[in-house]
Amino acid sequence: MEYEIKCSVCGQSSPSLLAFKCPSCGQPLAVQLYFDFEVGKIRRRDYTVWRYANFFPYVKEKEIITLGEGWTPLIDSGNVHFKLENLNPTGSFKDRGSTVLISTLHKLVKNAEGYISEDSSGNAGASIAAYAARAGLKAKIYVPENVSGPKFNQIQFYGAEIVKVSGGRSKVAEEAQKTEKGKFYVGHILHPLFRDGIRSLAYEIAEQLDWHVPEHVYLPVSAGTLLSGVIYGFKHLVESNVIEDMPEIVACQTRQVSPLYHSFKNLSYTPPERVTSIADALVSVNPPLLNLMVEHLREANGDAVMVEEDEIFNAFIELARKGFFVEPSSAVAYAAYKKQLKNKEASKDDKTVIILTGTGLKTMLKPN
Amino acid sequence: MEYEIKCSVCGQSSPSLLAFKCPSCGQPLAVQLYFDFEVGKIRRRDYTVWRYANFFPYVKEKEIITLGEGWTPLIDSGNVHFKLENLNPTGSFKDRGSTVLISTLHKLVKNAEGYISEDSSGNAGASIAAYAARAGLKAKIYVPENVSGPKFNQIQFYGAEIVKVSGGRSKVAEEAQKTEKGKFYVGHILHPLFRDGIRSLAYEIAEQLDWHVPEHVYLPVSAGTLLSGVIYGFKHLVESNVIEDMPEIVACQTRQVSPLYHSFKNLSYTPPERVTSIADALVSVNPPLLNLMVEHLREANGDAVMVEEDEIFNAFIELARKGFFVEPSSAVAYAAYKKQLKNKEASKDDKTVIILTGTGLKTMLKPN
Repeated sequence: MEYEIKCSVCGQSSPSLLAFKCPSCGQPLAVQLYFDFEVGKIRRRDYTVWRYANFFPYVKEKEIITLGEGWTPLIDSGNVHFKLENLNPTGSFKDRGSTVLISTLHKLVKNAEGYISEDSSGNAGASIAAYAARAGLKAKIYVPENVSGPKFNQIQFYGAEIVKVSGGRSKVAEEAQKTEKGKFYVGHILHPLFRDGIRSLAYEIAEQLDWHVPEHVYLPVSAGTLLSGVIYGFKHLVESNVIEDMPEIVACQTRQVSPLYHSFKNLSYTPPERVTSIADALVSVNPPLLNLMVEHLREANGDAVMVEEDEIFNAFIELARKGFFVEPSSAVAYAAYKKQLKNKEASKDDKTVIILTGTGLKTMLKPN
Repeated sequence: MEYEIKCSVCGQSSPSLLAFKCPSCGQPLAVQLYFDFEVGKIRRRDYTVWRYANFFPYVKEKEIITLGEGWTPLIDSGNVHFKLENLNPTGSFKDRGSTVLISTLHKLVKNAEGYISEDSSGNAGASIAAYAARAGLKAKIYVPENVSGPKFNQIQFYGAEIVKVSGGRSKVAEEAQKTEKGKFYVGHILHPLFRDGIRSLAYEIAEQLDWHVPEHVYLPVSAGTLLSGVIYGFKHLVESNVIEDMPEIVACQTRQVSPLYHSFKNLSYTPPERVTSIADALVSVNPPLLNLMVEHLREANGDAVMVEEDEIFNAFIELARKGFFVEPSSAVAYAAYKKQLKNKEASKDDKTVIILTGTGLKTMLKPN
């Protein structure tokens, strides 16, 4: 057996690639790998996520749906390397999850004369809509009633069917998950294959640094797909003896949306009534995978940092003025790095990777 | 001598990498190469424009300014391959010109305690602003007085100084070129090194197809930087015996902005009073390089096609529904291909590349 999809809580195995929760206890599923990463098995002439196709054994090669995602630039700026995930096909790292998820499922769903459903009016919704379009698969994207902006426009241009839901974010998720004829829920937060696709990002960072992994990796955290995917990827490389040690993973959050930071530091967290942060892609005040995230971060000897609005804005502007026009949510990771430098909790001499997760071209901010 | 920068009209050689017009007659300059392209000299571990660094002999390796441009995906859709130039760092193919231009000039300009100037409120302005930012070089971008929209926002986020000019597009160019202390004009249409950077796109298409070049390449044309750069790149490969024949280059224009189409077909062209096409990046009703473009296109046995607004819009939507969210101006090339298919002037059996030049994330169009 090369892999298994198992419940992260009760350990029950799930036989279906379509399942998004444990058939026994309803808790989140996760992919377990039972093979080593081998550098020799990289498909060297492929410059997408699929150069690592051999490490995603549940995807059939002929069924791969790609828009050219992955193999994004890693750009030096002194000892800091910026990983430009904003340059993915739909403008965010989510494309790694979508390409793996949709490649795995599209034939199964079509054979069942079905369609997929997802709840997101943001980067994940746009990404899943794009890959569904590329696969010729019908997608219904569930969004809050009063949504607007560039990401929502993007979802619609890809031709996804929009379902507006009133009554708050959890109601939107509920509607998207509700059983209906032909509907397959592929929600990016819960579906284990979406999260598993993010693993490719860790492989890529390691390969681009010639398998000399950085000492620290800073990344923004909301619902935790990026965090879990990256940790799992690096862990797989360590267990496969491809790299010696895990990098320290630094989970970066805004003060407003900081459940992981608080839980990790054993502090209590009260979310604001309304999230107003300029880091508007980071909205999970009550992430369903929180326990899993804390566990992963502890296991990985990681750290968590919380930043303020002015720190995010300044980091966003500073990045743009270095030539990296990313969304404010991406700037959270750079803001956290700068904060730690200032507090002497980080050092310029350490090899550090900062993951820039999404493009500035979708921001609603205006200059000046 | 490996290369020479020569006047495209009088043949006069220009000794300066900074010059944007012939020192004798004021006509456009162009780079002449006196060496062969050799596959063995590709820098195989570099996945940017700079894998072809050895074919840009005027750029010093240590002075390269990169944001990870180039090596964009070439995605199959049957016999058609879409070249996703929209996935460049600032969202368009212009980054190929900017990386070559700014890498060549930034030290020279800084040593003269100078700054660069450019006239563009669109993709080129955003691209030059980004590379100037990355190089720590001051940029003044001259724009029409009443400009707005995502591209203009992007220019400002990169920190360029904006100079608003009243009195029409030619007045903007004039002001940008006006001699001022420390000012170096690097206008993307006129500067030969910007155009020369686009050459990398032809190399890349050929390499990604294992040096079996396509039979046809469709691309949108406005001021002609893309057209000239791509033709020159393929010509270089033919002269170097790396490929046997040039692909047929098909220059695609909107009815409103079709000076090349008309001139190429020996028809007279009257520009509209105001350009209102949804292909809003294609605005050169009176391109300064028109004669050069016609000459290049004839030499290359190319063709020209003109498309209507409804054809562009339909192509734009069709591309998005395949997962390629590009700007309407990019859809002009796909619209032209579809038109030729319909008129039996093109065949689905021919290997065809369609260059998608810019991202849909900058469009001002709204869904529905």
